[in-house]
Amino acid sequence: MAYRRTPRMQQRIDATRAQIADAARRLVAASGYAGTGIPEIARAAGISTGSIYRHFPSKAALFQEVFQKASRHEIAAFAQAAQVPGTAPERLAGMVETFARRALRGRTLARALLVEPVGPELDADRRRFRAPYQALIEEVLSEGMAAAELVPQDPRITSICIVGAIVETLLGPLSERSGCTQGTEEEEALVRALVETCLRAAGPRPQTPPRSE
Amino acid sequence: MAYRRTPRMQQRIDATRAQIADAARRLVAASGYAGTGIPEIARAAGISTGSIYRHFPSKAALFQEVFQKASRHEIAAFAQAAQVPGTAPERLAGMVETFARRALRGRTLARALLVEPVGPELDADRRRFRAPYQALIEEVLSEGMAAAELVPQDPRITSICIVGAIVETLLGPLSERSGCTQGTEEEEALVRALVETCLRAAGPRPQTPPRSE
Repeated sequence: MAYRRTPRMQQRIDATRAQIADAARRLVAASGYAGTGIPEIARAAGISTGSIYRHFPSKAALFQEVFQKASRHEIAAFAQAAQVPGTAPERLAGMVETFARRALRGRTLARALLVEPVGPELDADRRRFRAPYQALIEEVLSEGMAAAELVPQDPRITSICIVGAIVETLLGPLSERSGCTQGTEEEEALVRALVETCLRAAGPRPQTPPRSE
Repeated sequence: MAYRRTPRMQQRIDATRAQIADAARRLVAASGYAGTGIPEIARAAGISTGSIYRHFPSKAALFQEVFQKASRHEIAAFAQAAQVPGTAPERLAGMVETFARRALRGRTLARALLVEPVGPELDADRRRFRAPYQALIEEVLSEGMAAAELVPQDPRITSICIVGAIVETLLGPLSERSGCTQGTEEEEALVRALVETCLRAAGPRPQTPPRSE
């Protein structure tokens, strides 16, 4: 028998759905996908296991929602870093540093977003969700070229290279199981070297030193 | 009942194993993992399906052998490019170009080696098999720094960045299903831009232009 949901009912359904996704996100940020099961999510959300499946057809679908929400949040932080006033090299440095520091601060979540093996649905999402980062970098590079702050280049390829460089560099620290290396000198050196390499890749013109102090 | 294999028996077993792996490699290079089944491999190797399982416990194990053999072959080509005499920037340019051109020429195999979804065993191998590329690049960068051809840097991080840059840039063309774009102007431009970006990342000193002609 078909029936209409009243606005009130819909509101309640949406609220429960958000509550489940939020509990799942917190658990994934603490233990990764592998360490997060439906029973734990149900417990954390304060509802029954069966209720979860009324909102998400599968664990994969729920993890996909977690991934997408968390990714949008990260992309927003990256976009904000892109808007800090400055030369293109300065802005790029801020963006790369923002990405790296956020990932190293919340490394279980970053691992879940970037590399933790989970399934084909999420692998496709991962690829798709790199595009906004690349586009934001490309924009800054294009502006830098227009302002003669950067050497002539194909800003699309450079931006793809920078995305690849950031992710590849973070995979090392993110795959280590040690949780307490945050803020160490080694980590500082890694972030600094990553930022410098990305800046060199962006090709600042000699009159614009990589980091104008 | 335990028994010893005679050298002759062992030789025949090894030959059959190699024959299976070689047939599998050719099929993967033509159709990827997804398009390659055990029956086709058996047919191509001229043996029965059952015989394959006497040599490889699973399809995953066979694909792992294919991956490892093909990877070693690619790494050898990359190492050879590293040995071409020249300045560090020249050698690095040759290495990046070699990698890119080989991948674009045999893109189904490159896709299988780099990104085609296949399973957790191979994902781990993929990560492990990036290390030799990174090490070869790091060596050239270190030599370039020692010869004052490159600016001071952390050659380990730069080399990780360059590996990430190469792979990320190739993912685009490799994920396209079109098989005949090889040798197009677009592809030439991509290889050129990739090489230039990697060279900038390596930080050639002003007196050493990226490509001394």
